[in-house]
Amino acid sequence: MSAGAKQMTMTIPSFDDAQAARARIADHVHVTPVMTSRFINELVGAELFFKCENLQKAGAFKARGASNAVFGLTEAQAARGVATHSSGNHGTCLAYAAGRRGIACTVVMPHTAPQAKKDAVRGYGGRVVECAPSTSSREAVFAEVLAETGAEFVHPYNDPRVIAGQATCSMELIAQVPGLEAVVAPIGGGGMVSGTCLALSHLAPEVQIYAAEPKQADDAARSFRAGHIIADDAPETVADGLKVPLKELTWHFVQAHVTDILTAEEDEIIDAMKLIWKRMKLVTEPSSAVPLAVILKNRAVFAGKRVGVIVTGGNVDLDKLPWM
Amino acid sequence: MSAGAKQMTMTIPSFDDAQAARARIADHVHVTPVMTSRFINELVGAELFFKCENLQKAGAFKARGASNAVFGLTEAQAARGVATHSSGNHGTCLAYAAGRRGIACTVVMPHTAPQAKKDAVRGYGGRVVECAPSTSSREAVFAEVLAETGAEFVHPYNDPRVIAGQATCSMELIAQVPGLEAVVAPIGGGGMVSGTCLALSHLAPEVQIYAAEPKQADDAARSFRAGHIIADDAPETVADGLKVPLKELTWHFVQAHVTDILTAEEDEIIDAMKLIWKRMKLVTEPSSAVPLAVILKNRAVFAGKRVGVIVTGGNVDLDKLPWM
Repeated sequence: MSAGAKQMTMTIPSFDDAQAARARIADHVHVTPVMTSRFINELVGAELFFKCENLQKAGAFKARGASNAVFGLTEAQAARGVATHSSGNHGTCLAYAAGRRGIACTVVMPHTAPQAKKDAVRGYGGRVVECAPSTSSREAVFAEVLAETGAEFVHPYNDPRVIAGQATCSMELIAQVPGLEAVVAPIGGGGMVSGTCLALSHLAPEVQIYAAEPKQADDAARSFRAGHIIADDAPETVADGLKVPLKELTWHFVQAHVTDILTAEEDEIIDAMKLIWKRMKLVTEPSSAVPLAVILKNRAVFAGKRVGVIVTGGNVDLDKLPWM
Repeated sequence: MSAGAKQMTMTIPSFDDAQAARARIADHVHVTPVMTSRFINELVGAELFFKCENLQKAGAFKARGASNAVFGLTEAQAARGVATHSSGNHGTCLAYAAGRRGIACTVVMPHTAPQAKKDAVRGYGGRVVECAPSTSSREAVFAEVLAETGAEFVHPYNDPRVIAGQATCSMELIAQVPGLEAVVAPIGGGGMVSGTCLALSHLAPEVQIYAAEPKQADDAARSFRAGHIIADDAPETVADGLKVPLKELTWHFVQAHVTDILTAEEDEIIDAMKLIWKRMKLVTEPSSAVPLAVILKNRAVFAGKRVGVIVTGGNVDLDKLPWM
């Protein structure tokens, strides 16, 4: 299975791929804990089980998919390294995984990206190559990187290896929480939601899968209702991990397995984030609060149910919290 | 065993009392997880095991001692309720424990205490009685409360029931982390440190116990060196849980079992707090960061050792973080 230049012909990952991913990445990622809050349960009127990927290696679930891609490379591929474009958790997590295997990793990001994101990639031994903050510059610079290094492109989400890796999160969750009735995960490009669909459609098809999205970046919700991918141009939201659009692979899983895509306003996301920090004592990203925000807003949908909530990451700038 | 008016004659809690406490509070507190950070270990040059009492019921280890006191009351005592003076975690945790038993709890605090602290007590069903922000007012108002209710006084730390309850934290820790060589806990009044001494002097006397204190409120460190209790008048520190002085019971344990008391400056405490938030994704109080701050400052003392770090609580005002 190879991504990169062959993206248009890539295959849909199978449950076998997810099982292989789980074995492949076992030494490189945490089985993250599931946490609960009596206070939040009473507030919501449901039983919520928070799957704490903020406690994952490199601070985000993306360590799973990145590790699966990196450790699935042949020796010849590995010798040329990996590359991606990302100013978010995928870049950091790919650098983490590459560092674990001892291979090169190049991450292209705009020179305007936060210094902390560049430092995070470098902290795991990755190389940052800067581009101008435009799609054309990014594509040109990234093409140069690939030509120069021969590196394997690992897309942040539209990659079967990445989706198979993300599936391991819900494989753990379903084993950790008996009798789960629904799972809610944030949706941006759809990598985590696709992995959730891949895992649960095989292991527990009775579990309903909800995606949670910021209203200000609701392209996935509109795609879901329209029946085809709608991509927005640079939406603005505090949940900065969720600005990217669906792609063909993730759209495949979303349209096949998702029950509904629910949205929340910016202030609702920030309130839910503070609630998690205050009551659960967990440092989480704004993106990770979108599921709780939509649950609070749609109590009737989840009333009395046992609901898994994917807390996707905890990499947040402590000096620029959204309520500051 | 009774505290309150009989404080001058109270007995030193024994390890049997700690074992009884563990059984008594088992249904009312969490066995909190122990977390690690590879990044912080490499930074420090030691293996640190963070005992996460910020994830304890009511957000602080004080739920242990408060629960032990409340659930150890006779029915006749319980019918009159409990009372304390505290504008910190002890008041909240006593209200929590009293709520669990279904008995009355009165907490006296200055009218200048943060609204969040009053709300927290009331949120667990406790009653807040306000006094003026002076020792004389607090003592007068508290005496009125006791006279009016006949409630059992549960001191925040100078109480054998409370110390026996806090001992359960290190009883868990020593079982969770094989081969522990040292434990570092913050010291204010000394309740947690005394509980740690009580547990470890019986279970693992080879483990060295260090107390960690803000330099700006270093009365315990000066007491330790002087050989008698020195109490400061209202010291100022960001670690607001650590301003209170040692009392006779906690002094007994400190002078008998503590290896050393190490201090950290305010900026070192804040840096250590941010490091825990950033790398471990844990919302913790400034007081909880003092142990890491002193470890970072005294690397040679802990080099290569397996060190338990008591993260005492996570009740912090998110709108007034010390780096804002």
